[in-house]
Amino acid sequence: MTASRARQPKTKGELTREQVIAKAAALFNQLGYANASISDIMRATGLQKGGIYRHFESKEALVLAAFEFAVDELGLRFEEALAGKATAAERLRGIIAVYANIPTSPPVPGGCPVLNAAVESDDADPALKRRVAKVLRDWHAFVTRLVTEGQKQRQLDARVNPAEFTTMLIAALEGAIMLSKLWNTTEPMRQVRAQLEAKIREIELG
Amino acid sequence: MTASRARQPKTKGELTREQVIAKAAALFNQLGYANASISDIMRATGLQKGGIYRHFESKEALVLAAFEFAVDELGLRFEEALAGKATAAERLRGIIAVYANIPTSPPVPGGCPVLNAAVESDDADPALKRRVAKVLRDWHAFVTRLVTEGQKQRQLDARVNPAEFTTMLIAALEGAIMLSKLWNTTEPMRQVRAQLEAKIREIELG
Repeated sequence: MTASRARQPKTKGELTREQVIAKAAALFNQLGYANASISDIMRATGLQKGGIYRHFESKEALVLAAFEFAVDELGLRFEEALAGKATAAERLRGIIAVYANIPTSPPVPGGCPVLNAAVESDDADPALKRRVAKVLRDWHAFVTRLVTEGQKQRQLDARVNPAEFTTMLIAALEGAIMLSKLWNTTEPMRQVRAQLEAKIREIELG
Repeated sequence: MTASRARQPKTKGELTREQVIAKAAALFNQLGYANASISDIMRATGLQKGGIYRHFESKEALVLAAFEFAVDELGLRFEEALAGKATAAERLRGIIAVYANIPTSPPVPGGCPVLNAAVESDDADPALKRRVAKVLRDWHAFVTRLVTEGQKQRQLDARVNPAEFTTMLIAALEGAIMLSKLWNTTEPMRQVRAQLEAKIREIELG
């Protein structure tokens, strides 16, 4: 979408499309992409089947659009958390704070859309799996660069391996989301966050 | 089942029941508990619907039995890994080695049955969620005791908080399984394992 196009008022069709995507994203993230049916989405949107398929050529197309929507919502939170953070350590703490909020206040109902879609799709949905893998690869590369940049700026200990550090950060936080949602308590996230923040203090310079 | 009962040869019905559970566990762990249908299980077992429902009163009953089966298979691996390990640090390394094998050689096809069932059930299946939550609570308590015992025996640094350490271990390893399966590479697991093993060396005494 070009900038000039974005400024025009949305058509009724565009608004309907966006509403379907948002409602579908919530259902998929809670019930699973395969398990939430078009009937569930009809109920949630109040639309007939034809009204949904006017905007998406297949359930698979809606699955991918809903996943993109959920990832964009999550992305907005990271953008907001990173804005104005001067050092690499502050930026890392900002990223951790976004993850820490997901169990009780997810970007889309149902928890972390990346964790949910990854676990569901890895043996069951190659198209969704490819998309999730790419999103998480890009995110991993972004955080790795943030650490590398912090080392160049002498903000972080140069002995840390940026990619390894990033993998641990993402793995531990996604695992903590799983535990916190399963046990209905923020305690696992609190414990993991405390240990990751201690690690950041350990590698923070100056 | 009593010990004397266990020694009797299995009836044809018992063997069929076990075969259905094993095949269903593999399907559920790969496709999802809600998504894998009774038709999928009929195809995988070669049984008619009546032949399946003779052994399970409902799909929910089969779901819970299949999850128990998958957890038992995983439990056997941990038992084997822990047998003969003299110190707490050796036992922790044995546990990590079992997790490290899951992406390429899962106890049941489809990866870690606890991670998969946790992520699927947390907003969608209260009965399965309760069961997964209990399994993971018991496992968390077991590893926490192992660390506490290691501290009493002066094998591990007493300053470590056993429950926090255990939460980090489980969260990071489950997150690493998710990443390794999503990206079809053992690299994330290798990176997380290296960092957890470095942490164990750091807290190991003597």
